[in-house]
Amino acid sequence: MPTTEPQPLSTELSSTLELAVELIRRPSVTPDDLDCQELMIERLERLGFTIERLPFGDVKNFWATHGHHGPVLAFAGHTDVVPSGPEAQWHTPPFEPEIDAQGMLRGRGAADMKGSLAAMVTAVERFITAHPEHDGRIAFLITSDEEGPAIDGTRAVVEHFRERNERLDYCIVGEPSSTERLGDVIKNGRRGSLGGVLRVRGIQGHVAYPHLARNPIHQIAPALDALATEHWDSGNDSFPGTSFQISNIRSGTGATNVIPGEVEAIFNFRFSTETTEKELRERTEAILRDHDLDYDISWTLNGEPFLTREGSLVEAAILGVEEITGERPVLSTSGGTSDGRFIATLGSQVVELGPRNATIHQVNECVRAADLDALSSIYEAILKQLFVAQRTR
Amino acid sequence: MPTTEPQPLSTELSSTLELAVELIRRPSVTPDDLDCQELMIERLERLGFTIERLPFGDVKNFWATHGHHGPVLAFAGHTDVVPSGPEAQWHTPPFEPEIDAQGMLRGRGAADMKGSLAAMVTAVERFITAHPEHDGRIAFLITSDEEGPAIDGTRAVVEHFRERNERLDYCIVGEPSSTERLGDVIKNGRRGSLGGVLRVRGIQGHVAYPHLARNPIHQIAPALDALATEHWDSGNDSFPGTSFQISNIRSGTGATNVIPGEVEAIFNFRFSTETTEKELRERTEAILRDHDLDYDISWTLNGEPFLTREGSLVEAAILGVEEITGERPVLSTSGGTSDGRFIATLGSQVVELGPRNATIHQVNECVRAADLDALSSIYEAILKQLFVAQRTR
Repeated sequence: MPTTEPQPLSTELSSTLELAVELIRRPSVTPDDLDCQELMIERLERLGFTIERLPFGDVKNFWATHGHHGPVLAFAGHTDVVPSGPEAQWHTPPFEPEIDAQGMLRGRGAADMKGSLAAMVTAVERFITAHPEHDGRIAFLITSDEEGPAIDGTRAVVEHFRERNERLDYCIVGEPSSTERLGDVIKNGRRGSLGGVLRVRGIQGHVAYPHLARNPIHQIAPALDALATEHWDSGNDSFPGTSFQISNIRSGTGATNVIPGEVEAIFNFRFSTETTEKELRERTEAILRDHDLDYDISWTLNGEPFLTREGSLVEAAILGVEEITGERPVLSTSGGTSDGRFIATLGSQVVELGPRNATIHQVNECVRAADLDALSSIYEAILKQLFVAQRTR
Repeated sequence: MPTTEPQPLSTELSSTLELAVELIRRPSVTPDDLDCQELMIERLERLGFTIERLPFGDVKNFWATHGHHGPVLAFAGHTDVVPSGPEAQWHTPPFEPEIDAQGMLRGRGAADMKGSLAAMVTAVERFITAHPEHDGRIAFLITSDEEGPAIDGTRAVVEHFRERNERLDYCIVGEPSSTERLGDVIKNGRRGSLGGVLRVRGIQGHVAYPHLARNPIHQIAPALDALATEHWDSGNDSFPGTSFQISNIRSGTGATNVIPGEVEAIFNFRFSTETTEKELRERTEAILRDHDLDYDISWTLNGEPFLTREGSLVEAAILGVEEITGERPVLSTSGGTSDGRFIATLGSQVVELGPRNATIHQVNECVRAADLDALSSIYEAILKQLFVAQRTR
């Protein structure tokens, strides 16, 4: 139950909150965009941005640039949101944003990541108004498929950019990176993600005649134990050690007197830069071979690890956060994947910096309304650090 | 495809085959009896048997006795059959029995075990006609639920008998015990069957944050390996060693980025008389405790092992087979469970002796027609061994 009655939205919302509310009102569940991008485009065109719509399949994407020379800083993000889940469990309707008495903006996408999109747009509005002749170029790379298959979204745009040698020096992804307080964590990289589906074949039979069968569950058990207890690497200063997790295992028909013919296990590596996809595959298969299994395995590389080391972007982001919050953020590479994995392959410096992630993908997603205003100020401060700092400091 | 066209049933069938055909025509899938028992009862009443119908729940059972003194020999069996499976795969309709050009009686239940029921009835008919004043008492213990839950069938009748101290010295179960040739194997016991459902609880989480979760698949793997490789016992002259088999394992939601909260494994022991249910449970739980698992386990004792050592019944059965087939049968305790497990708890000597089991529970179940006549002769020879041998040999 809600602890307080949500208040009607006042007419005195900040520009950032106004835009966030407008975006949240559109139930743009992946891959739907429902003209969220057009809302942003309209604001950016008014600032003089050049717009390039880049749809792939049923996914809408756009690329917008402002300025004509120097390094490119892109704000990256997504207009799609995950489904609301059971609406009955929401204290307020998921697509009717409200700010409650505690000052929380509630609604699907408030934290992941329509709040960030609004903060980016208003930060750029203030910055360009104050610095129409800024250094460098400011860009937006926005997709409507980050939460879904993520094939026709940022990945496709990045492939397109690679072909035409589009320059992209710095990228701020608006993913909700903060944990306890706004800006306490900046993600400057992510581990790689490698998935596998392992099938081990035995010989089906009756449990009363085990000598005529070969039980694949008995065979896979010690192999899974070996994989689960393997020390893959110790990580390094920027990455925790590589981890291996089995997410699913399945065998048997339900009948209790039949030895099954096959077992399937699904697993996932989150891996550091101390190893490679190829090495993990080889080491896994060596362990399986050691256990004399009749197996096949199908691999999916979800993303290579990437790391943006200390440099102009990381420095600007840290200073930007410090200027607005008064606290120094920590750098982290933990957590799940994001579109940063695709953008990093262009050689860009990439950081993720957004609001607190405590409620993302859950019912009653919310974010402190004041945090979105502060986030907009952080983005603006970073723009200053990179594109006017040299002249004004 | 059938290799030969089935022939119409001739009018010159033996009495045993006639009754077998009548029984197979009734599609008495568990727990239905469809008056198969009444067919048998009619024949037995004509011989002077006293009939006691013992229905429990929706299961029909009957007990029939002939004679007034001395040891009791019961013929035990079931009128229910397993479902036909896909009828399109049958060369002849499953419930329209036919004898083909190779002399095979085809139909569901031909081997398991309506053929045996017919052989029992005709054996007793001939025996009582020839020896109206036989020693001992002849009985039938027939159920319509051996293939199903087997709760309201022989098990319930046996409990009823235990309460009223019904005497049951010898029991011949008509299960298809023969493998290569009729009478080549007599089962003089069965291993025990103990089932378990093991649930191991972990802590659900995201694969990217394994330190916040506890993967129950990782935890169960070494425990299952330990159970699967444990040497439970070496068996003895009558029993093979106890075997442990995992029949099912299941964990995960299908999502590849979620560490599941629980894993379930279903397993089964087939155990010899060198151990006990209690010891197996204790040893299993000791292994689970050694692996520090948060688990629960639910046990089902499907049957204690039983063994009928050399004695009057085994001797009579061996001599009966030898007399008719000219070959000496071997004694065996291998294979699955039967209602013998319940009857043996009354302290009875129990053997299983019936036709070849090559096609049971399969499509195109069949049995050599001549084998049913020979089986009837074997049953008759056993009756002579036990109840007239002393006077006529």
